[in-house]
Amino acid sequence: MNTFNAYFAKELPRINGALDAVDLPGPVRPIARHILQAGGKRLRPLLTVLVARLCGYAANDIYRLAVTMEMLHAATLLHDDVLDSATHRRGEPAAHTLFDMSSVILAGDALLAQANAQIAAFGDTRLSLCFSEATSHTAAGEILEIAAKGKAETSATEYETIVRGKTAWLIRASCELGALRAKADAAHTEAAAGYGENLGMAFQVVDDALDCAPQSVTGKPSGGDVREGKMTLPLRLYRASLDKTEQAVFDKNFTDGLMTEDDVQAIVERLRNAGYDMQARDAANAYLEAAQAALRRLPDKPEREVLSTLCAYVSNREK
Amino acid sequence: MNTFNAYFAKELPRINGALDAVDLPGPVRPIARHILQAGGKRLRPLLTVLVARLCGYAANDIYRLAVTMEMLHAATLLHDDVLDSATHRRGEPAAHTLFDMSSVILAGDALLAQANAQIAAFGDTRLSLCFSEATSHTAAGEILEIAAKGKAETSATEYETIVRGKTAWLIRASCELGALRAKADAAHTEAAAGYGENLGMAFQVVDDALDCAPQSVTGKPSGGDVREGKMTLPLRLYRASLDKTEQAVFDKNFTDGLMTEDDVQAIVERLRNAGYDMQARDAANAYLEAAQAALRRLPDKPEREVLSTLCAYVSNREK
Repeated sequence: MNTFNAYFAKELPRINGALDAVDLPGPVRPIARHILQAGGKRLRPLLTVLVARLCGYAANDIYRLAVTMEMLHAATLLHDDVLDSATHRRGEPAAHTLFDMSSVILAGDALLAQANAQIAAFGDTRLSLCFSEATSHTAAGEILEIAAKGKAETSATEYETIVRGKTAWLIRASCELGALRAKADAAHTEAAAGYGENLGMAFQVVDDALDCAPQSVTGKPSGGDVREGKMTLPLRLYRASLDKTEQAVFDKNFTDGLMTEDDVQAIVERLRNAGYDMQARDAANAYLEAAQAALRRLPDKPEREVLSTLCAYVSNREK
Repeated sequence: MNTFNAYFAKELPRINGALDAVDLPGPVRPIARHILQAGGKRLRPLLTVLVARLCGYAANDIYRLAVTMEMLHAATLLHDDVLDSATHRRGEPAAHTLFDMSSVILAGDALLAQANAQIAAFGDTRLSLCFSEATSHTAAGEILEIAAKGKAETSATEYETIVRGKTAWLIRASCELGALRAKADAAHTEAAAGYGENLGMAFQVVDDALDCAPQSVTGKPSGGDVREGKMTLPLRLYRASLDKTEQAVFDKNFTDGLMTEDDVQAIVERLRNAGYDMQARDAANAYLEAAQAALRRLPDKPEREVLSTLCAYVSNREK
């Protein structure tokens, strides 16, 4: 982790500097600042910078490009918080509890527009296309997730499509953007995108596994997904293990949102005892192996080591 | 109006054809179709086509560019309907009454993303910048309008800034986009943008005047703006005419949203009798004169005549 931490410590202030310099319409500023300054790991812009450097790009305008990924991510979070009626985000009150809901939706729109403008200023429409596709796929993934809510028979393929859309595509695009800016050849650009997509898949599957971990480990209440009717991989494995009668009860409560807190805790405990969260982590590791394989098709430079370390970080994440 | 109607009849099927061909993620399609097929005047794409032709652009890819303006408009309407909790739009049930609110917000995002992608495919980043600025200004204008809601002392300048943002900028961008695609010189591009901006200002000010017209004329309940706490130009003129005591009562009810239906109807009737709606129409006509002046700086071709007729249409609009 040391290579990664050193790299992160060096790049974080530059990424935050580029975020501070983002030009937004006056009335949008306080809302955008609220979501952007509440923290976050800046994983997405960091990936853009890492991949660009790995592909030989030296100029410092990469930060202005990289932060468009954080802006898209922030816009998504603003809209999500409204959708989910979440009360907190990144440990701070959710934007729509401080500002009115309408302004929060519009601030998300303005952030997307400014990110698009900032990308267009680079004069390379491949970058704009990459950004637009990421926005489009992310929205589509979230809509599919909403449509699948409470649907106990959500298939493995549906779950993968949702995860690829709502989480993996933006991480893929963050990597692809760096390669495109560096004018990497098609093979390297594809490898960078493949690394990002698999890292993103793993990231979300681990997140879904962590949702079943005890609160004493993660610091977050466990079972959020079952409570919200999200049929994640560990939950699907759990459901498949039930006998017919148990499954009928589970399905009814899952679909109708009738789980009590005791039901939820009993489910995650049984799920953990059977090791379904660990099976999900195995699935995540398979994605991470694919990410590592894609990495090996990229130049052997220090940034590749950092990107490889990131796979280990996602694999071992405990909260 | 005949030139205009003939032009409209010719271009409308082509514009609708390009809208039908828009590629959207599966789950977004029904929501996007709902808002796009509910009608609308297609004024914005028509302006893009007209200006491009006027500036000498002959190719038919202009329709694919032009509809991005309708897509942005539709995305705005989808988000607005959620914001306003409107039950109807263009005579049809509002999207969020048929689909869930979350999906409607996300469908707006996906429409914006696809419009950006469609523009990026033209390979000219000036077009992307123009589109992003339009999105950004529209969102900023709407946020300002929300912030000014119920504020009786909203100034003339604030009102203008709101109208320029929420309505005029998108109409300006529709014209500018046509000129940019035609590779018009800077003077012609600026003239086209100026025409659009002034036409857009006039369009909204007339709309605000029509809000005070009797329902028997417009077919819509009058006084919507005073009911919703929007301090439009005719309302500001009305308020300025009140004596101190009357004004204090008006301000309190306006700010607190305490108007009864009788109050509202009494206000719009007094406002009409004093001719403040007509004064607003005079202000709109001043914008239309500026639009006509900008037009005269563009080539003298049949499309210019159509654009000029459009000014008369906006000026004489009765519903």
